[in-house]
Amino acid sequence: MASELTRDKAFFAFSPDVEPVLRVAQGEEIKLTTHDCFSGQLETSDDTLDTLDWSITNPATGPVYIEGTKPGDLLRVDLHEVKATGPSVMVTIPGAGAMGDVITEQETTILEHTDDSVIFKGRVRVRQRPMLGVIGVAPAAGEIPNSTPGGHGGNMDCTLVTTGASLYFTVGVEGALFGTGDMHAAMGDGEVVICGAETPGEVRMTAQVVDIEGLPTPFLENDELVAIIASAETVDEAYQTAVHETLRFLTDIVGMPKNDAAMLMSLVGSLKFCQVVDPLLTVRFEFPKSVLAEYGFEMPR
Amino acid sequence: MASELTRDKAFFAFSPDVEPVLRVAQGEEIKLTTHDCFSGQLETSDDTLDTLDWSITNPATGPVYIEGTKPGDLLRVDLHEVKATGPSVMVTIPGAGAMGDVITEQETTILEHTDDSVIFKGRVRVRQRPMLGVIGVAPAAGEIPNSTPGGHGGNMDCTLVTTGASLYFTVGVEGALFGTGDMHAAMGDGEVVICGAETPGEVRMTAQVVDIEGLPTPFLENDELVAIIASAETVDEAYQTAVHETLRFLTDIVGMPKNDAAMLMSLVGSLKFCQVVDPLLTVRFEFPKSVLAEYGFEMPR
Repeated sequence: MASELTRDKAFFAFSPDVEPVLRVAQGEEIKLTTHDCFSGQLETSDDTLDTLDWSITNPATGPVYIEGTKPGDLLRVDLHEVKATGPSVMVTIPGAGAMGDVITEQETTILEHTDDSVIFKGRVRVRQRPMLGVIGVAPAAGEIPNSTPGGHGGNMDCTLVTTGASLYFTVGVEGALFGTGDMHAAMGDGEVVICGAETPGEVRMTAQVVDIEGLPTPFLENDELVAIIASAETVDEAYQTAVHETLRFLTDIVGMPKNDAAMLMSLVGSLKFCQVVDPLLTVRFEFPKSVLAEYGFEMPR
Repeated sequence: MASELTRDKAFFAFSPDVEPVLRVAQGEEIKLTTHDCFSGQLETSDDTLDTLDWSITNPATGPVYIEGTKPGDLLRVDLHEVKATGPSVMVTIPGAGAMGDVITEQETTILEHTDDSVIFKGRVRVRQRPMLGVIGVAPAAGEIPNSTPGGHGGNMDCTLVTTGASLYFTVGVEGALFGTGDMHAAMGDGEVVICGAETPGEVRMTAQVVDIEGLPTPFLENDELVAIIASAETVDEAYQTAVHETLRFLTDIVGMPKNDAAMLMSLVGSLKFCQVVDPLLTVRFEFPKSVLAEYGFEMPR
């Protein structure tokens, strides 16, 4: 029996003070639906940002209280299914995004969905690769708007956050107070105009505490690779954190000699952009699991 | 009849003042061999950087004088074959690279080559994806060490610079004074410990002037995509240049409406790291050619 949660149960900032709307046991399947990042306010190309209620943008469905979790625990969230239900919307916003200085006209466009694609202006067919832009847990203290990424997760806009991925977070408060939303049916690395194909969606997931001491978080795992995710005020700061935390993971947890780890990071690891448009900017460092296996390491299951 | 050039004909800085070692006609095939970035000085794991002659590191084979080229011309270089001949070498250098602060021991390791792979320490097999780290033309004035990327090309360390790619450069001086080297048999995006699998190699290529007014350079094209490459003192500056130049390409040359271009950059374009370890840092923005075709544009051939 899965627990279900609908998109009308949403919050707008990760915080210890937001009341949970669902309690689940560890390992219990959760089915939830998510709004698009505008809470469904932009339904046609005539709906502009002028009339948008900004206070209900970036909703995350939740918070979900996960029983038996306490501050300092490592929480693994397994995404069994991330499905875009469409339609999607994209916008341009003068002044916003990596090219905000040259974007002069606000525009809203609706992208219809087919079984496996989204259609941009009846012209460009883009294969769906649905992903969750916002996913995380409450910090130990304070309030972090859903627009913002950080050590707690949040608006990381990482294209790997999709079906089959596992995300690891450090729990900040009792119950973790997990939430997710901001699904994109498709998005390129960088998200340079500040949106992907913003879509409502459905998620099936489980969450449980695991024991991997010192794992840098947020951390992501899929069939092929692990990724260390880092956010900062500049990309230069973020990538420094990502590479140093990856090296620490490879030496202290995987047990690789430092020079092997460093050289293999350069040879088979990849530094990648997640997004450059949110209040903090996010990158990830990807490293193949096949190489971890050569050093006798498997992620505990 | 191809013109041939061997790796002993090398230079160490792109400059109008380096005498060309070969003259070729436009469209004439050139076969050249390249040294690894240490000019072959590190042959065993006992060869350390202590005895390295740094003055002959980062050699580029050339310069090649391409007949009929003059300042301001757009030069397209077609890479018909980029082949690693091995063996490869990797090093750690305390103080160098994105993790130089925590790399404490210098090490040299030799990677043997099989037909399609390189072998790291007898343990990790990595599929070869040979690429040229250094490729470019002389600037109009001054001298740019081969270690450094820039508007002329140089040490961009872009993993797309491989068989089947075309590179576009703006010619700085009569004859272009083209050169290339610093081949890697494999490398991850970021090149975070400052080297890939550094290998000698062989290249077959042609070069010719083409007419695409205002094309941002360096520019790369392969079967799937185009990429705008940008280097700067910080990644944050480099990506700003890359996205703005891509938008300019899509609007002014491809002819896309500005908002379409911007939204599609966010939806199907990807901002990627090339390297974060050279004197300037390099990123690229990739955009699919299939979408250019939807807007009626093909790269001229």
